[in-house]
Amino acid sequence: MKTLGEFELIERYFKRPARRAALGVGDDCALLAPAPGMQLAISSDMLVEGRHFLATVDPVLLGHKALAVNLSDLAACGAKPLAFTLALALPRAEAKWLEPFAHGLLALADAQGCELIGGDTTQGPLNICITVFGEVPAGQALLRSGAKAGDDLYLSGNVGDARLALEVFRGTVSVPSAVFQLARARMEQPTPRVALGLALRGIASSAIDISDGLLGDLGHILKQSAVGASVDTDAAVSRVAARAAYASVEPLAGTTVTPAQWLEWALAGGDDYELLFTAAPSQRAAVLAASEASQTAVTRIGRIEAERGLRLVDGQGQTGPNSYTSFDHFA
Amino acid sequence: MKTLGEFELIERYFKRPARRAALGVGDDCALLAPAPGMQLAISSDMLVEGRHFLATVDPVLLGHKALAVNLSDLAACGAKPLAFTLALALPRAEAKWLEPFAHGLLALADAQGCELIGGDTTQGPLNICITVFGEVPAGQALLRSGAKAGDDLYLSGNVGDARLALEVFRGTVSVPSAVFQLARARMEQPTPRVALGLALRGIASSAIDISDGLLGDLGHILKQSAVGASVDTDAAVSRVAARAAYASVEPLAGTTVTPAQWLEWALAGGDDYELLFTAAPSQRAAVLAASEASQTAVTRIGRIEAERGLRLVDGQGQTGPNSYTSFDHFA
Repeated sequence: MKTLGEFELIERYFKRPARRAALGVGDDCALLAPAPGMQLAISSDMLVEGRHFLATVDPVLLGHKALAVNLSDLAACGAKPLAFTLALALPRAEAKWLEPFAHGLLALADAQGCELIGGDTTQGPLNICITVFGEVPAGQALLRSGAKAGDDLYLSGNVGDARLALEVFRGTVSVPSAVFQLARARMEQPTPRVALGLALRGIASSAIDISDGLLGDLGHILKQSAVGASVDTDAAVSRVAARAAYASVEPLAGTTVTPAQWLEWALAGGDDYELLFTAAPSQRAAVLAASEASQTAVTRIGRIEAERGLRLVDGQGQTGPNSYTSFDHFA
Repeated sequence: MKTLGEFELIERYFKRPARRAALGVGDDCALLAPAPGMQLAISSDMLVEGRHFLATVDPVLLGHKALAVNLSDLAACGAKPLAFTLALALPRAEAKWLEPFAHGLLALADAQGCELIGGDTTQGPLNICITVFGEVPAGQALLRSGAKAGDDLYLSGNVGDARLALEVFRGTVSVPSAVFQLARARMEQPTPRVALGLALRGIASSAIDISDGLLGDLGHILKQSAVGASVDTDAAVSRVAARAAYASVEPLAGTTVTPAQWLEWALAGGDDYELLFTAAPSQRAAVLAASEASQTAVTRIGRIEAERGLRLVDGQGQTGPNSYTSFDHFA
């Protein structure tokens, strides 16, 4: 097995000429200047083996996901991706892992116009820390604090599928192969909703990306906006893509997944990287147009209310309290 | 032992009102805008237990060091610290570790006017990844690529002491307690040379911070500037603070440290976080003034030459080739 030195590693897999940045990889600092009138949106996410990904994951997909979860934060702010830094702790510097990892990472970076401008590499337990930079016109960032009573509550894409895949890996449930493959793709290769986030500038009143579970992350909007919400649980559970796919593969009744599990995974599954956002009812046509322009499905799943707290409402109009807990890395 | 949840952890130890940033901790992204005409200097460093620090280190000092090594990169660019993000993987979220860690981290942050604006926390093997942001007037950043034949080569502060402390911890050498304490403080609590870096804007032709060893990091300047250098080894070894302190404690002859070890640690010890920089001979008075203004010792240790390669010259004028290798995390 060829082992690479640290500097050779950086040169070979990660050094590229600076494009947008004034100075890229290879000095003590990178240099970046947002355009006049723009603010820089900054987010940092750390991925740890066994916690955020399984040791068995394809390095191409891991490279994609490591950047995707960071781009998802930019999307939730309505920021346009510019650049990122990569800090990487690796047990061994091996070409057979680094090459596909860099490939997956830089393919998404190129697709999103997001430039690798610097970082760090070290020996250690596998850990991927990316800090991402985007730009947004001053005052136009989508924040968690802007939701108002009466606003509609929307969800992009699908939820719950990553959790299904995790449970299959854990062996707690079994599903047909075609369903598992769909769920696994959602877990291993999430699509950051950057285009939707950009399209929602000036339309959404608040937004967050769902990483720790729909209801848990909704809780951050409610707390920071000082409002409450009711959530249509049937609408939410309908967005589990694997559940919808099931019907075409095998009757739901024939599986080991219970209705309560589908609901739990939709509402509190985690690892979804979808946008949850609010907008005034007067913006419904604009939200639809943003969904179409960004080619991203958007589902209205509830409403913001003045009464604090979170109420779950099913298709029969039955209301219940929220008994789901958000994912906590230290729980 | 009280165990804290992730959100409680962030709230309690790391959330503070945003001052300079437009938006700080608590949303999907932080928002930052450099002043007009300024570029943002960005650097990222990852610290891993057993690699960059020992498990026995005081968390107060570790908090300091984690930020200091990043500020050292800003210093090497002549950038003024603005803000940083902190991503933290922890085996357990314990107040008895987090409180002193945050204290050491934020004390240095406050002293340097560098604001914590966001980050991430997760469960995992201890890993500290900081990305730091500074500002520098467009075109004035100190780069590795500006050294010219005939320039003087300078070193700030002291080198080799961190390596001495490491070797004592490893048990390969023994030194008197007072000498060890001095070296240990240098290893555990490096002083980022921010003030000197700012004072060298417009004076230094190139700069780098020494993290992997004096000669190894000098090699980056030489490569990127397409020049060579001769280094006065006596001048370099005179900058080992512990060696100088030795004389006042115990005769050097009475120790287990050999002259060759002192020299190796000065030239290739690593973990020094000093500035190595070049300036034209016409700037000698300006360099001295920058040293005085920043209250940072500066020593002239060599010269940049047109002939490529690195030549070591001792006090007797004897020249030898460079046989030292830079620290490589994967060697």
